[in-house]
Amino acid sequence: MQIFYAYNTADNKAFLDKEETRHCTKTLRKVVGDTIAIIDGKGGFWEAQIISFDKKSCELAILKEIKQAPARDYYIHIAIAPTKNISRLEWFLEKTTEFGIDEITPILCQRSERKIIKKERLQKIILSATKQSIKSKLPKFNELKKFKDLILENQELTYKTIAHCNKKNLPALKKSIINQKKILILIGPEGDFSEQEVSLALENGFVEIGLGSSRLRTETAGIAACHTVHIIHGV
Amino acid sequence: MQIFYAYNTADNKAFLDKEETRHCTKTLRKVVGDTIAIIDGKGGFWEAQIISFDKKSCELAILKEIKQAPARDYYIHIAIAPTKNISRLEWFLEKTTEFGIDEITPILCQRSERKIIKKERLQKIILSATKQSIKSKLPKFNELKKFKDLILENQELTYKTIAHCNKKNLPALKKSIINQKKILILIGPEGDFSEQEVSLALENGFVEIGLGSSRLRTETAGIAACHTVHIIHGV
Repeated sequence: MQIFYAYNTADNKAFLDKEETRHCTKTLRKVVGDTIAIIDGKGGFWEAQIISFDKKSCELAILKEIKQAPARDYYIHIAIAPTKNISRLEWFLEKTTEFGIDEITPILCQRSERKIIKKERLQKIILSATKQSIKSKLPKFNELKKFKDLILENQELTYKTIAHCNKKNLPALKKSIINQKKILILIGPEGDFSEQEVSLALENGFVEIGLGSSRLRTETAGIAACHTVHIIHGV
Repeated sequence: MQIFYAYNTADNKAFLDKEETRHCTKTLRKVVGDTIAIIDGKGGFWEAQIISFDKKSCELAILKEIKQAPARDYYIHIAIAPTKNISRLEWFLEKTTEFGIDEITPILCQRSERKIIKKERLQKIILSATKQSIKSKLPKFNELKKFKDLILENQELTYKTIAHCNKKNLPALKKSIINQKKILILIGPEGDFSEQEVSLALENGFVEIGLGSSRLRTETAGIAACHTVHIIHGV
């Protein structure tokens, strides 16, 4: 099933932007009267008919809702330090979106080698993975945030974890989350979190966890963390 | 820790090939008398001293064994259809090697779009991931094999599974493997296994399994399958 991202989905009407219009009408040669599947990125998923289009946009009439699997009863938020090689972060975004993730925050750490990200490009990867894996809701992708700010902003959260390799035999994430449904996991940069950062997290109610016996790259640790939550809580 | 791949590790001597020699003596500027860590790819892991080197090779004296975590008591073999875009297969190889995998067989299926792989390049990716994640043993990487041949060759195996999306509500891999320690999992190409292929597998003792509610790409399914086994059987 080919899915398009539509906006302004009100009054049983919806529109495709320039890029989606081109893909729909040029690449796939859809014409007026054809029906397509659309999402609004907020959980809406419909069958819609092409009413008219030009080079820049495409107008659709919403025909009916498409039935979806019931929403998950757990929430995954991963805060991760962008990798030096940006394609590694991109793979993390694609894979966790495929598995299902609710919120992603790129974080700036003491040992971060990458201090800038191009959010627009990364958003496109997330959108593409959302459509590819037939999901109607986009994960929330936050602005790049300083490690300390992220820690201090999540004071009220009752369960939050920091994954690191500075200590051996940390409790495993898979055991730690068994009774937790709203989960925040912090994943550090290539050189890991500093001891100072780990201390700050612990002072603010985070628990330390490990992701198994293998030394994992940043993006692999992020993918493992997300997948672990699905294995424990998913169907 | 920087690890080098050495060969001919007998009589307390070992050698680096041309590429590893260049990396060791040119890039990292190691000199005679320096000690480095080496693996032989078969489970050997040592501290060794540089005795001599030229442009093509480096001779080492093995000093002592490096202590390793005890070996896993479960065995993971994934047979996967190479992806059209080879970088997706490469990521599968890198990530599963990082997590830990024992055997990988590329398989040729009815709907395979890619029919050729460059094994040497893929071996390098596996070696690099092995060293990066501090493992002493390389996964066994088999030749590209026809789907049918793989099925018929594994007659004696008591537990073998085929992951596909042709049916809804298949039993979950995570439940299916609980009492299984030697595991073979088949992952299909972009268009999934054909019904004929699934039937052939079932007739030959395979069980069908699912990997959760999301539609996953080939390489993501492979990574998910490998990680699921570690979550269920690992520490």
